[in-house]
Amino acid sequence: MSESRVIRGGAGDWAGIEPRRYRHGEEGLARFRDVTRHALLGAGPGSGEAGLGFELRYFEIAPGGYSSLERHAHGHAVVIVKGRGAVRLGEATEPVSTLDVVYVAPHDVHRFSADAGEALGFLCVVDRARDRPVVVDEGGPAGSASPGASGSRERGGR
Amino acid sequence: MSESRVIRGGAGDWAGIEPRRYRHGEEGLARFRDVTRHALLGAGPGSGEAGLGFELRYFEIAPGGYSSLERHAHGHAVVIVKGRGAVRLGEATEPVSTLDVVYVAPHDVHRFSADAGEALGFLCVVDRARDRPVVVDEGGPAGSASPGASGSRERGGR
Repeated sequence: MSESRVIRGGAGDWAGIEPRRYRHGEEGLARFRDVTRHALLGAGPGSGEAGLGFELRYFEIAPGGYSSLERHAHGHAVVIVKGRGAVRLGEATEPVSTLDVVYVAPHDVHRFSADAGEALGFLCVVDRARDRPVVVDEGGPAGSASPGASGSRERGGR
Repeated sequence: MSESRVIRGGAGDWAGIEPRRYRHGEEGLARFRDVTRHALLGAGPGSGEAGLGFELRYFEIAPGGYSSLERHAHGHAVVIVKGRGAVRLGEATEPVSTLDVVYVAPHDVHRFSADAGEALGFLCVVDRARDRPVVVDEGGPAGSASPGASGSRERGGR
């Protein structure tokens, strides 16, 4: 039987795909806050989608939350599909809202923030084969550097 | 200078990216109708985005329009971001609306239709390296088979 299918969306939920929640302080790193991820295609547990060389994910950041400040050798293709917020790209920060497209080039430091009083939801496409992100340790909204923070810890999935 | 950037969206238009219009009857094939394509990332003329192994495109189908009935060995990851319509996947046709995700598995015949009285806009991600689509010749809304239509003509870009 064919794998082709429609996954019903709605208000940022997709039937049958459980979101993973990144908790504040998960792994001892208070560097991201109030972020959930849906692995839509190419990345779910047991997911085949062998016809795709990439993964499609949906991230939603609650008001006031933000993603890790990070960098990696692979690029990101992002499309905002819900709300508004901001993206930091290198040293610049720009506001973003629904249907804006963001290209994060290799090695550029980046962070998404729901800083406009509403949730920020975006699709993010990455190559299936990619390097692991490096969290950048920098004084900023993600909290002051704590003793023992190396500035180069890695976590999977982005 | 970094390639990272925000491409402003809005109502299905992206600054600086000219849509290509597929005209009814283009290439002598009346098999699609009222479809425009924006090559957002990884596919535009002169576009680098070397950090991506895939292309991100936006298609919009005007009310009453439809895409070619086609098949190919690569998969599609599609997210509806505007309006509603329908997708044919193999022998089945399902309604789709904003934020529904569609996976088109390799070799499955498919077509998107704006059959609900409004425009249908969707993002479509494909691997950069992929085979060319084959247009399927079948009696249907794309018109009756015309003499000389081979049923296996190819066109680029999908």
